[in-house]
Amino acid sequence: MTTLEQVRKRAEADAKTYGYYLTPQPELLQGFLEGLKINEDRYGYPLCPCRLTSGKFEYDRDIICPCDYRDPDVAEYGACYCRLYVNKEVYESKNLPEVPERRPLEKQGRAYGIDAAKQAPPQGTQEKPPTPAPATTQAEKAKTEVKKKLWYCKQCGYVVFREDPPYICPICKAKKEMFAEVESKIEFNG
Amino acid sequence: MTTLEQVRKRAEADAKTYGYYLTPQPELLQGFLEGLKINEDRYGYPLCPCRLTSGKFEYDRDIICPCDYRDPDVAEYGACYCRLYVNKEVYESKNLPEVPERRPLEKQGRAYGIDAAKQAPPQGTQEKPPTPAPATTQAEKAKTEVKKKLWYCKQCGYVVFREDPPYICPICKAKKEMFAEVESKIEFNG
Amino acid sequence: MTTLEQVRKRAEADAKTYGYYLTPQPELLQGFLEGLKINEDRYGYPLCPCRLTSGKFEYDRDIICPCDYRDPDVAEYGACYCRLYVNKEVYESKNLPEVPERRPLEKQGRAYGIDAAKQAPPQGTQEKPPTPAPATTQAEKAKTEVKKKLWYCKQCGYVVFREDPPYICPICKAKKEMFAEVESKIEFNG
Repeated sequence: MTTLEQVRKRAEADAKTYGYYLTPQPELLQGFLEGLKINEDRYGYPLCPCRLTSGKFEYDRDIICPCDYRDPDVAEYGACYCRLYVNKEVYESKNLPEVPERRPLEKQGRAYGIDAAKQAPPQGTQEKPPTPAPATTQAEKAKTEVKKKLWYCKQCGYVVFREDPPYICPICKAKKEMFAEVESKIEFNG
Repeated sequence: MTTLEQVRKRAEADAKTYGYYLTPQPELLQGFLEGLKINEDRYGYPLCPCRLTSGKFEYDRDIICPCDYRDPDVAEYGACYCRLYVNKEVYESKNLPEVPERRPLEKQGRAYGIDAAKQAPPQGTQEKPPTPAPATTQAEKAKTEVKKKLWYCKQCGYVVFREDPPYICPICKAKKEMFAEVESKIEFNG
Repeated sequence: MTTLEQVRKRAEADAKTYGYYLTPQPELLQGFLEGLKINEDRYGYPLCPCRLTSGKFEYDRDIICPCDYRDPDVAEYGACYCRLYVNKEVYESKNLPEVPERRPLEKQGRAYGIDAAKQAPPQGTQEKPPTPAPATTQAEKAKTEVKKKLWYCKQCGYVVFREDPPYICPICKAKKEMFAEVESKIEFNG
């Protein structure tokens, strides 16, 4: 089982790698780290403590901390959605900004089994119980199946195997649009 | 359209990730950021503001900021070719070093449609208009076509999909020579 | 040939990327850097100065500095096995912790040609000559052949081509257990 100390060290190490800071509010920080530990013990991965789980790894993948949205959020707002990771300015000012949910409605809808076009996105906290997913037919299942592809950053060549490319290339900071699919070709002569 | 503020934040975030600083001269910094913004608006990618574009993404790829040469240049000279990215020592001394062009002549020649062996490399700035590429025959085109391969760092396993490996592995800092091609093998039984 | 200055700059740059520090003891630091330079000149790669070489790149790969074990060691003990890389706390306290050898016995056994189950792991320094590997039969060779696979981090999609996944994902800090093999599928229609 992961200890709270390990969770804290991992978050600190990751913050340093990216030049970030952990939230300047000690009580908040303690709460986030405990939330991450609880989620890791419960689900096997440190799910974002500010969002609901779908109960399916493939649908939660983008909101495992550090989530897919942290880097663009810190770049744009100075903090991630949770305000666990912040930039230097926010850290020193201690004024936590409002950070809107960047997670696409389609992913929220898929995760929570709702029609994103009709309903408002769930605004969960770890205290609230996850919305149970309604029974899905085989056809619906196939429709929402997660297909991974090999993507590469056209700028620096960084390769990832994911459903879709990251918002920002972690190596060269290029935007999502700079990613393309690695296509392989097999030729037969005869 | 990318705002100047977004360009500045992206450069700052990238500098922090790698332990670099942005140039200590405020007017230079402003000029670089504006140059990057202009290039991104014009070409769709933040081309190095100190080099000429070829007009072809595939030929410019290595000089999109942060360019392929930044990391070896900061390691060797304390600053990149532009002196946009500098190390702590240079940042504090405010003495910008001379940094020679590390971009191989072949790539310059290919980009600008000149024979690198015969002519001096162009020393461009964004103000100068790009040298128009002369008409190329089909044969010449095929000859200069950019072929990407899957490379891996033999030290840490980092994988990239590029024409050739990076100068330095961004993960473990191994040199270019430590990269090899990922070879795939398909076996048939019958 | 790599200069001592290049070795020092590479280590400093890598420490900064990950938010680490180099050992606070100047004599130790000098010794490590010289050891790394000697190893790089001798073997072609900067083998860990605190461990023995097997003489085979494939068997030494995990102990090329920065070794595979550095990141989990700094996370858990505040320093790598050598104590070349340390965290801020250790750097400021100047108290170097004891760091046990995390390298698996199987890899030590394979590298030094000993049966890991029967013998104690070698505790080498660069001064000691490497244990000569006993003659191996063709069958034994095949058994210990290093097979590389394409792995990806299920959390962030990071891809590596290695014998086994890294201890910690260098991009999102997920644990080894979050890595899975990239499986490719080729379909024929006819």
